[in-house]
Amino acid sequence: MTQQRGEETRARILAAAVKRFAIAGYNAASVDDICAAAGVSKGAFYHHFPTKQAVFLALLEGWLAMIDMGMEAAHKGTVPETLVHMTNLLPTVFASAENRLPMFLEFWLQASRDETVWQAVIAPYHHYQEYFAKLVEDGIAEGTLKPVDAQAAALLIVSLAVGLLLQCVLGPKDADWQNAAEQGIQILLKGLAN
Amino acid sequence: MTQQRGEETRARILAAAVKRFAIAGYNAASVDDICAAAGVSKGAFYHHFPTKQAVFLALLEGWLAMIDMGMEAAHKGTVPETLVHMTNLLPTVFASAENRLPMFLEFWLQASRDETVWQAVIAPYHHYQEYFAKLVEDGIAEGTLKPVDAQAAALLIVSLAVGLLLQCVLGPKDADWQNAAEQGIQILLKGLAN
Repeated sequence: MTQQRGEETRARILAAAVKRFAIAGYNAASVDDICAAAGVSKGAFYHHFPTKQAVFLALLEGWLAMIDMGMEAAHKGTVPETLVHMTNLLPTVFASAENRLPMFLEFWLQASRDETVWQAVIAPYHHYQEYFAKLVEDGIAEGTLKPVDAQAAALLIVSLAVGLLLQCVLGPKDADWQNAAEQGIQILLKGLAN
Repeated sequence: MTQQRGEETRARILAAAVKRFAIAGYNAASVDDICAAAGVSKGAFYHHFPTKQAVFLALLEGWLAMIDMGMEAAHKGTVPETLVHMTNLLPTVFASAENRLPMFLEFWLQASRDETVWQAVIAPYHHYQEYFAKLVEDGIAEGTLKPVDAQAAALLIVSLAVGLLLQCVLGPKDADWQNAAEQGIQILLKGLAN
């Protein structure tokens, strides 16, 4: 198997797993189902992933890496400008989370009973918390933000993002979530900015 | 069965169900388990609840009613004062949500596949959204809040509460959630208040 061929196979397995998990749920979707949908052998599957759980963790990692890349790209200008740019990421994040609620719930349920997986799911929260605390500190240093408690402000920003995401996943059509996020950041910035 | 006796039995079933759901999870806890833990017959159980799902819905309702009572009690003085009072509710809300994550996840998973239950779970979100939109409108009318978009401000407040609650359930020891909520409301109020 050439390296390029191997990467194509890996990508096909991941794409098939997204669909199977979304349709059947994480528990009900078997490795056989995923292999059939991807058109790969079980040998090829296990060459790339030791378990079904490893596929899910790779999907989670890919989703978080996409968010990180977007956050890096939004990091332009002053800190208040960066926070406003970040709301432009939300349509993509919201769209990628939509219709995956049963899958997320089933996986979290498993994670809540498995310490290793739990850490993989929890680690991103800590990462975002630190990222925004640093951003708020930068804003205070550059004089665009008031001298607030950076940890508290970061928790507020992360809570807002988590709350919006959860509500959007629960009821995608209940509100204009993009507009809600933009207005939310504007109100927050009135409290935070100099 | 006297009415008082009936109410005692109902309360015993609910208390036993809380424990069984928390220990075994919603799916694994059977009606037999709950009856044994409550020391009641299956006949008595079915006199009060048609299904195990009805027990869960009654628990959810009781939890939300407790939050509503607390919110009513916090409704004193100006709107900014009311919002600050409400953070005093959080220790109780956080404590009652702790250790119940597997149960919540399993129930939401079921709810995500059952339209009727889904509506029962989603309805509270709409209720809180309307409650806070009205509160923000009152604040604008009394002159303590800026003339912001009341729906957007309400969504911000509800998102903050949902985000804090979810993060607290995921990692109860990761932060001082009570302090985080108080600081969050203070930053929010700097953006909202006149």
